[in-house]
Amino acid sequence: MRNAIHAKTLLAALLVAVAFGCAARDPLPSWNDGATKAAILEFVAAVTDENGTDYVEPAQRIATFDNDGTLWVEYPMYTQLLFAFDRVRELAPQHPEWKTTQPFKAVLEGDMKTVGESGMKGLMEIIVATHSGMTAVEFDQMVTTWFATHKQSRFDRLYTECVYQPQLELLDYLRANGFKTFIVSGGGISFMRPMTLDTYGIPPEQVVGSSYVVAEFQINDGKPQLVRMPKVGFVNDKAGKPVGINEHIGRRPILAFGNSDSDMQMIEYTMAGDGRRLGLFVHHTDSDREYAYDRESHVGTLDKALDQAEANGWIIVDMKNDWKEVFLVR
Amino acid sequence: MRNAIHAKTLLAALLVAVAFGCAARDPLPSWNDGATKAAILEFVAAVTDENGTDYVEPAQRIATFDNDGTLWVEYPMYTQLLFAFDRVRELAPQHPEWKTTQPFKAVLEGDMKTVGESGMKGLMEIIVATHSGMTAVEFDQMVTTWFATHKQSRFDRLYTECVYQPQLELLDYLRANGFKTFIVSGGGISFMRPMTLDTYGIPPEQVVGSSYVVAEFQINDGKPQLVRMPKVGFVNDKAGKPVGINEHIGRRPILAFGNSDSDMQMIEYTMAGDGRRLGLFVHHTDSDREYAYDRESHVGTLDKALDQAEANGWIIVDMKNDWKEVFLVR
Repeated sequence: MRNAIHAKTLLAALLVAVAFGCAARDPLPSWNDGATKAAILEFVAAVTDENGTDYVEPAQRIATFDNDGTLWVEYPMYTQLLFAFDRVRELAPQHPEWKTTQPFKAVLEGDMKTVGESGMKGLMEIIVATHSGMTAVEFDQMVTTWFATHKQSRFDRLYTECVYQPQLELLDYLRANGFKTFIVSGGGISFMRPMTLDTYGIPPEQVVGSSYVVAEFQINDGKPQLVRMPKVGFVNDKAGKPVGINEHIGRRPILAFGNSDSDMQMIEYTMAGDGRRLGLFVHHTDSDREYAYDRESHVGTLDKALDQAEANGWIIVDMKNDWKEVFLVR
Repeated sequence: MRNAIHAKTLLAALLVAVAFGCAARDPLPSWNDGATKAAILEFVAAVTDENGTDYVEPAQRIATFDNDGTLWVEYPMYTQLLFAFDRVRELAPQHPEWKTTQPFKAVLEGDMKTVGESGMKGLMEIIVATHSGMTAVEFDQMVTTWFATHKQSRFDRLYTECVYQPQLELLDYLRANGFKTFIVSGGGISFMRPMTLDTYGIPPEQVVGSSYVVAEFQINDGKPQLVRMPKVGFVNDKAGKPVGINEHIGRRPILAFGNSDSDMQMIEYTMAGDGRRLGLFVHHTDSDREYAYDRESHVGTLDKALDQAEANGWIIVDMKNDWKEVFLVR
């Protein structure tokens, strides 16, 4: 059965390749030829073929992408947490109590094991303390400055350059085929927006994410502004993703791309619609060029989704074998 | 001072009219010539003039419109409440307790005075009871059917035809000039979305509204779906509007259009940005063609905004004098 599907998609890909006329016009040059790439090309060809039975009108061509581990590196630690830890160190002089209060003490001492053991509760305390107490405009500038000045240690690249070249090509390819591309991430919406347009070509209004702190409208000294309050808002993760999609987009995606069990609900919701659908997961299998992690990982755990992929028709993208390039080609 | 502004904007409008070449190509034919129309034309000309000092790049041309009383009729009662009252009558057989429980009893008896006296608390009870307990898809279909079968009593028109022709022209005109148009309404996001695309040309992902009930992702009988729960979510009204704008759009509008004091914060937030901005309110002054109401009205109260408009440079659109047509020209 699996081979039958592969033969079909390979044939379709061949037809698509012929239609494209020449190899030089390959829309996904950083994807190796094979079943995964073939399935993507065949899907896009099918939903854009006005005379085909799988045709989807442009307005309904919604594609949603997770961010951490799907569009950019998330290992060994989510970028937003690294930003938060930097903020803890920066704010420490104004918080002498942090020297003796966990999990802040552990951050200041570089004791990541204790930080990790503080769990979701501890991490949320760190996020709320470091992401609130300023206006929305000030936070945006803070994040922008941080992105411009901090590098991922192993790859010696800005975080905005630790994005996956094959995915940038896929985003472009989808948009060229009438898709509207959205980010749907557990990451903070205000943390992502300063980088999504320049990096992914995705404008702020097409970013769906968590509101780790809520904003409040205030008029201070006659100046109307949004102030970030120390209060947790909506968490756009796991079962929250379909809810966030419905709130922000109001349409069900026809293509969704994730990389962990936290993306399962988004993919399930996507695949449950009528007509042709495509659900994909990046599997981090490349310790040489990036990282290899899945079932036991402390970030981006990919376990249940691996087990259920074949039965559900989800595509597991094998980073090592499916991607010719990993990071943004500069 | 006021006359000076008017003379300037009239002159600008004249120049715009000359630039347009002939009256036949007036982009706002249902707006009477005068200071209001001139101010709109001049603003759009200014922010789209690449060589001018007020130029705004297309991506930043965000325009937000309130819905009730700004794009469609809200008097004598918000359309969504009329839908909710119909739902109470429909569901009554399954809720024998409503015969003796307020505010449901009053709805069933047609006693609108008592319903009104139940206040925001009572109305929210009605909304939550009638807007939850079904999937998102089912609710969408319910609303679509209601819109197709119910008419506004005084005008004998479908509610989707009780929309303002001058505003439809303005939406088109803004989009033709590179603006992205959004609805930002206190109305329920799921109540508006079934009608905004066909009626206003605004797709679901550009609708910002209240989540009067929150959705929850569930897998029922193996079917992934969003179920509307009896729990109040975000209310996108008054100070909630800038918050909703920031969450959904992530950019500050450069033009905002409302009609009541509930829109003041949206307009204040809009006007507080850098560069040229335009803030407008519809003033319902036309009891012959629509309705006349403002300071003392039980819906769409326009009081403080009227007082503060001139000092803040907000434009008050006088329905009677500024609009040649009121409703959609069929």
